[in-house]
Amino acid sequence: MSDAAQQPALDFKTIFLAGDGWSVEIIDQTRLPHDYVTVSLRSLDDAGRAIRDMLVRGAPLIGGTAAYGVALAMKEDPGDAMLARACRDLLETRPTAVNLRWALDDMRNRLQTVPEQDRVEAAYARAAEIVREDAALCDGMGAHGLAVIQEIARSKPAGEPVKILTHCNAGALATCGSGTATAPIYRAHADGVPVHVWVDETRPRNQGAALTTWELARAGVSHALIADNTGGHLMQHGMVDLCIVGTDRTTASGDVCNKIGTYLKALAAKDNDVPFYVALPSTTIDWTLTDGLAGVPIEQRAAEEVTDVTGLAADGTLKTVTVPPVGTPVANYAFDVTPGRLVTGLITERGIAEASASGLAALFPEHAQGT
Amino acid sequence: MSDAAQQPALDFKTIFLAGDGWSVEIIDQTRLPHDYVTVSLRSLDDAGRAIRDMLVRGAPLIGGTAAYGVALAMKEDPGDAMLARACRDLLETRPTAVNLRWALDDMRNRLQTVPEQDRVEAAYARAAEIVREDAALCDGMGAHGLAVIQEIARSKPAGEPVKILTHCNAGALATCGSGTATAPIYRAHADGVPVHVWVDETRPRNQGAALTTWELARAGVSHALIADNTGGHLMQHGMVDLCIVGTDRTTASGDVCNKIGTYLKALAAKDNDVPFYVALPSTTIDWTLTDGLAGVPIEQRAAEEVTDVTGLAADGTLKTVTVPPVGTPVANYAFDVTPGRLVTGLITERGIAEASASGLAALFPEHAQGT
Repeated sequence: MSDAAQQPALDFKTIFLAGDGWSVEIIDQTRLPHDYVTVSLRSLDDAGRAIRDMLVRGAPLIGGTAAYGVALAMKEDPGDAMLARACRDLLETRPTAVNLRWALDDMRNRLQTVPEQDRVEAAYARAAEIVREDAALCDGMGAHGLAVIQEIARSKPAGEPVKILTHCNAGALATCGSGTATAPIYRAHADGVPVHVWVDETRPRNQGAALTTWELARAGVSHALIADNTGGHLMQHGMVDLCIVGTDRTTASGDVCNKIGTYLKALAAKDNDVPFYVALPSTTIDWTLTDGLAGVPIEQRAAEEVTDVTGLAADGTLKTVTVPPVGTPVANYAFDVTPGRLVTGLITERGIAEASASGLAALFPEHAQGT
Repeated sequence: MSDAAQQPALDFKTIFLAGDGWSVEIIDQTRLPHDYVTVSLRSLDDAGRAIRDMLVRGAPLIGGTAAYGVALAMKEDPGDAMLARACRDLLETRPTAVNLRWALDDMRNRLQTVPEQDRVEAAYARAAEIVREDAALCDGMGAHGLAVIQEIARSKPAGEPVKILTHCNAGALATCGSGTATAPIYRAHADGVPVHVWVDETRPRNQGAALTTWELARAGVSHALIADNTGGHLMQHGMVDLCIVGTDRTTASGDVCNKIGTYLKALAAKDNDVPFYVALPSTTIDWTLTDGLAGVPIEQRAAEEVTDVTGLAADGTLKTVTVPPVGTPVANYAFDVTPGRLVTGLITERGIAEASASGLAALFPEHAQGT
């Protein structure tokens, strides 16, 4: 598979091998959107710091970075003790990240059967494969989502853009490829289907304002930033043709856990007959859960995420300001659950499933048999 | 009517005569929430500047300030030319504010029939009356809304707070009394009914984060600030008993134009069987409109309101920071329309009306006959 097919319309990669063939380049996402800086990871510690300090974020990209972290560790010392330490240290950087644990288990299981003298090569090969596999998942979602966008485009006057609302950053920056929710958008843009993206700023952490805008601008995709309050009004006035969001976790019954506020947009989509799609790699489906509202615990995060905002000050430096009265009590829930009844379809790498137990079972019979 | 009845539970007033008996004290709301500073208006120009520079905001408070502005002008010069100039200058400060035009028309119509030597006294008397009338409207909404809160309180274990979600600042700070949406809350608090308020931060202008939190804290009302994305999740989990919001304009059919994002919360309330009330003085009902979605034009505002955030920096000064990439395209709609079908009731100074043409006609037969 060529690079062009992996990241259509994108001129950046979130993770790649440097020209020296062994150090690993990433984008320092903490400096986006105001500075685009790549950082070279040259050791296990570099990789751990990149994950812990959130230079990289997004479950798939964390997994890819961890895999390369093990490869960097093997280059330092291919022994069993180092392999164990690398997996332990990297897991501790973001202990709740599912892809992180999966990538580290995969690397350890493979490498411990490989003779020490072959481990560096085997580790780099497998890390590259994990990154390629993630990019291929993105391509799959892009291809299936493209069909949805194309169908809407055909129903509109020629040249009129398909207007797509998205929430948070389920973008290239969160993956090793073209993103989840953004994959169909980049694919449509690359194929010449005109699109316009409404970008929810996504309070409280502003991932839409800071990251989704950045990557859409860089890819040359028409877009406009909106306050999270705005989507309903746009849908009432026929200004949204389609919503596509990502998800952290989907239940076997099609309920979708995603960034807080997703549920409100899904309600507005339903009320205005706007199709509401969720893009996800099937690896994020939790086949053990059938009731998202009852079964998915929702993380509460620090009050400062709501009270404080960081951005570019007039003097060109990054500054943080506090909006409410100092000491204001805050409730900060990170995610919400959108019931499957509000979701038009789940865009996976294998195809589009109805957001229901039967819909998912039809597309993934191998999992459904186990439930 | 005593002051205590006008602003139960509140220890501040948004507008009042100073001890000298003629200068007018207001809160400089541009310095809230980090500084509480009152400003003394001593001339027509002072009053005009206070409205234009938004030291006062909120339609009712703008009306009261304009009325006192005419009184200050009469103190400078009670002649016909000054009366005309005062009304013209003040109207230009916020030309689209309905209460501003109404207050100025009222003052001019009354004063032009009053002999010049009596105009100062008459102007101050009428301005005080306009302020008192607005406070009485707030009290009326407070009393009728209190009944709703009390009924919910009775259905809960004793002492457990009634949890109320509100959006924007439909508070005391926007009126000459205890606010519109907040009036029932302050009244319940003063009457010993335990309440807890979820305060939407209300992007993009953060009136909830900056103003509603400030006044609830000052009144000692339990509250927590939330991102606008959060209300749906709270309602799904039984953490909201009631929503109360304000409105800028209500149609004769019960559609409600209010701060952008109100519609999304109303959808979530409907989906979770949470009562959704709108508090309004009947003066803001537009009896000529029957379809809010088609009939109410929605103002678009400056991109900077979305891209830039002002708050208290670490050095103790107010600073403004830009969150998205510089130059990001923005769409900034100020209001949305919530269809009456999503509104449980309209809390007015006269009672609670069903949000429909027949409901409003029943409570306001004198207007309905004209439609």
